[in-house]
Amino acid sequence: MATWQDRPRCDEAPSWAPLLAHAQRAFTGKDAFDLRAGFAADAQRAARFSFEAPHVRADLSKNLIDAEAQRLLTKLAHECGLESHRDALLAGEPINASEQRAVTHVAWRNWAPATAESAPAALYSIADWRAQMLTLADAVRADEAITDVVNIGIGGSDLGPRMVVQALSAAQATSGPRVHFVANMDGHELAALLRQLRPEQTLFLVASKSFGTAETMRNALSARAWYQAQGGADVARHFVALSANPTAARAFGIERCLGFDEGVGGRYSLWSSIGLSIAIAVGREGFEALLAGAHAMDRHFAETPLARNLPVQLALLDLWYRNALHLASRCVVPYLHGLRALPAYLQQLEMESNGKRVDAHGRTVPFATAATVWGQAGSNGQHAFFQALHQGSDVVPVEFVLSATAAHSLPEHHRKLLANALAQARALMMGQPGDAPERHFPGNRPSTVLLLPDQSAQSIGALLALYEHRTFALGSLWGINSFDQWGVELGKRHAGEIENALLSPDADACAALDASTAALVGWLRQG
Amino acid sequence: MATWQDRPRCDEAPSWAPLLAHAQRAFTGKDAFDLRAGFAADAQRAARFSFEAPHVRADLSKNLIDAEAQRLLTKLAHECGLESHRDALLAGEPINASEQRAVTHVAWRNWAPATAESAPAALYSIADWRAQMLTLADAVRADEAITDVVNIGIGGSDLGPRMVVQALSAAQATSGPRVHFVANMDGHELAALLRQLRPEQTLFLVASKSFGTAETMRNALSARAWYQAQGGADVARHFVALSANPTAARAFGIERCLGFDEGVGGRYSLWSSIGLSIAIAVGREGFEALLAGAHAMDRHFAETPLARNLPVQLALLDLWYRNALHLASRCVVPYLHGLRALPAYLQQLEMESNGKRVDAHGRTVPFATAATVWGQAGSNGQHAFFQALHQGSDVVPVEFVLSATAAHSLPEHHRKLLANALAQARALMMGQPGDAPERHFPGNRPSTVLLLPDQSAQSIGALLALYEHRTFALGSLWGINSFDQWGVELGKRHAGEIENALLSPDADACAALDASTAALVGWLRQG
Repeated sequence: MATWQDRPRCDEAPSWAPLLAHAQRAFTGKDAFDLRAGFAADAQRAARFSFEAPHVRADLSKNLIDAEAQRLLTKLAHECGLESHRDALLAGEPINASEQRAVTHVAWRNWAPATAESAPAALYSIADWRAQMLTLADAVRADEAITDVVNIGIGGSDLGPRMVVQALSAAQATSGPRVHFVANMDGHELAALLRQLRPEQTLFLVASKSFGTAETMRNALSARAWYQAQGGADVARHFVALSANPTAARAFGIERCLGFDEGVGGRYSLWSSIGLSIAIAVGREGFEALLAGAHAMDRHFAETPLARNLPVQLALLDLWYRNALHLASRCVVPYLHGLRALPAYLQQLEMESNGKRVDAHGRTVPFATAATVWGQAGSNGQHAFFQALHQGSDVVPVEFVLSATAAHSLPEHHRKLLANALAQARALMMGQPGDAPERHFPGNRPSTVLLLPDQSAQSIGALLALYEHRTFALGSLWGINSFDQWGVELGKRHAGEIENALLSPDADACAALDASTAALVGWLRQG
Repeated sequence: MATWQDRPRCDEAPSWAPLLAHAQRAFTGKDAFDLRAGFAADAQRAARFSFEAPHVRADLSKNLIDAEAQRLLTKLAHECGLESHRDALLAGEPINASEQRAVTHVAWRNWAPATAESAPAALYSIADWRAQMLTLADAVRADEAITDVVNIGIGGSDLGPRMVVQALSAAQATSGPRVHFVANMDGHELAALLRQLRPEQTLFLVASKSFGTAETMRNALSARAWYQAQGGADVARHFVALSANPTAARAFGIERCLGFDEGVGGRYSLWSSIGLSIAIAVGREGFEALLAGAHAMDRHFAETPLARNLPVQLALLDLWYRNALHLASRCVVPYLHGLRALPAYLQQLEMESNGKRVDAHGRTVPFATAATVWGQAGSNGQHAFFQALHQGSDVVPVEFVLSATAAHSLPEHHRKLLANALAQARALMMGQPGDAPERHFPGNRPSTVLLLPDQSAQSIGALLALYEHRTFALGSLWGINSFDQWGVELGKRHAGEIENALLSPDADACAALDASTAALVGWLRQG
């Protein structure tokens, strides 16, 4: 078995060629695998492709996969040293090679590294940081003078906390202050929110790992200017920083900074001090339940044989669709209004982690990586893009995310919601001959169901940890470093240059730009 | 030139084969077209691929296209009889063949059909319906007892109005009541809203063309039950129907029904009585401005030669990417917080209109149709999925939507926002060699910029009409009927059956289901 430093990439593993050959032989052409025949031929198919993990049950049986593909995929995962790579992640070894550091978000979920010596020293302050954060959350919740909390952050400092607060607020009444989120450089977002706020009742959380993110700094400056213009005089009380760079926060004028270690990547940071907005919304117990749910999934990922390991099996299905059946996208449809931001969250998690062209050794990979993830809440999507899923030219695997129970008391809604989700999955598979060509449904279109028992903090925590580990496992198979994101750097550099061109009355400022950008700057100057 | 009834499909037109041959020759392989070389070779490239339409300027020059491709594509559009099909649409001829009717949403924008004889009689009540709607909007805005308006609708009865209200509320303070939207069968959406409302101050708009949409009926029943349980006694005053089926609305117990004609498709209905929520939010003048902006774009579409016709050129670019370069998705990034719902709106508009496998004559089409449309607001997306756009394995054309001006007064935000958008487009194209493999950006990645002068109702109206006509033009080239949506029917049928299985304590209710669905029903019954 390969060690994590020297694992074969999926296309270098012995099972790669047989896997692609099996896809070619059994899943293309006239006699290609058909789901309806697959169920007819195998009474155990539903059970065979069902998986249990903490707080999540998964039905993968309506996917374009068979027992042989599953066997080869699981073998491939073994050959690629996925287990040793996983163990290295969980042990805090420096697997983020391009940034030369460990990956520590799992440690924030009370994960005790197996090999303490190899873990970075930073791990040992997690408990302190978290205690500090939860104490502050309690204090804010108890402070009747604070009615509104505004999290200013973008990317990982926004998407995760925003989604979790939405999800948990939908399911349970919360007694704390209102929690708002501002991310966009577009000032309309902040300006519209400020109109609703009073400075003496508002607490701003400025969330940025580097404390240098352009949007977050601009929004924080505007928020502070508004606070002071409205007569606010106590910036120290009304601004808190969530950052791994407390020096920069102090330079900005914020004294209170909740820290975290560099090993927490932005898109994995909701478990850390970046999650303060969550803790304020749902309280200490709610936040600890979120961590506990994620920790339960961590244990499942760490301890379950690959053949029954849900994040691993989902990653293998993703690899199968992307590299063997050449499907370019996956549609995620949470049948949960509270999880309507899940597709946006997953776009970051998956496409920022694995949307890369080079492997961890710097070699260009000869296969496709992260699929496009997209979707909307169900049942809304049924009345929008589902037309194309059923009758369009492309096969797009659909992922339905459901909760068995609801936290509201409106009659019939939840049963009808669940029925609609299962009906769509069934219709995609079954199809229908149709009495006219436009009423023909080809069927044999794949889908997955992920079922939570409820929308509790535990369940949401487990679901998100499931997605994180699936993303890591897929990147690991592809040989990719899922924890860097160099692709966001180049645009930042150009932005300053173009901002200067927009500012300058001198046409020469455009001379260094390409003709298209220069023309656009010209249009914008005209207004 | 072919008539609209007997036009060749794109793959039957003389220019189809030369177009694909040109793509093969000039856009694949080692010497494939490169944007950077394209600009170096042609000083007029930016101007050549820039277009002007009412309220929208478009820069298409950073796309993987050259003058020869553009020439062939425009020739193809002529050969396919796009002009006669467009004229038939605008004249109110029955171009929606599978439903045997005309398409009338353009007529709601004060479009006088050129051939009045051929127009359906229904057209002539549009002015009356609209007058009635605007009068009611005025009355609601003037009624100080009504503080909250709730639009209950889904799909086209939700996405368009919701997005337009968001877009116009972001840009201008509105003096009317608060306007809310409820779409999802998930009761958490309605339940959370009801907690904020008082029955005597709330007006419910029940928006459904058929007045039989499952989600809308369920939400309307629950809203009425809540209204009555809270002591509300005047359903006639507090509920209005927006529907082409006033009989069903009356049967539900709603007396006031604003009607519209059957020729208005759901995803094209915001211009009709379905737009009441918009008219309440922005007033009569705002709504008329929205129509005027759309009408100006209608005239551009009707009157501009195809080579300079913006919706046509965008449709041709879509066809080029989909069928000649085989790109499966397009990413839409509105750098406007107010237009953050644009990707969801376009998913319906484009994928429900053109996500089909058969042409209007019932023949299976041998090429790919509607691409997956996806995206998020910028600058947020930069901190999420842009990693994959810059460095991922797939080429995804990006569409940036910008407004030259902002309606807020926060300093610097808007300039920085615009600079970021242009910087991303420039970075995608220019790339960067990189001093390490993970810092290498390949460049040559395509994008389009659509620039509005502002976020006024006129500009938003023009932008949406642009997208509508682009979608129609693309469907027309593909030979597809863009105005039906049979693909949404099959799931509805299964939903009732599965709801019964969820209700019944009798295990035999699952006997008719496939093994996967039966197992899922079993899980759900366990709770």
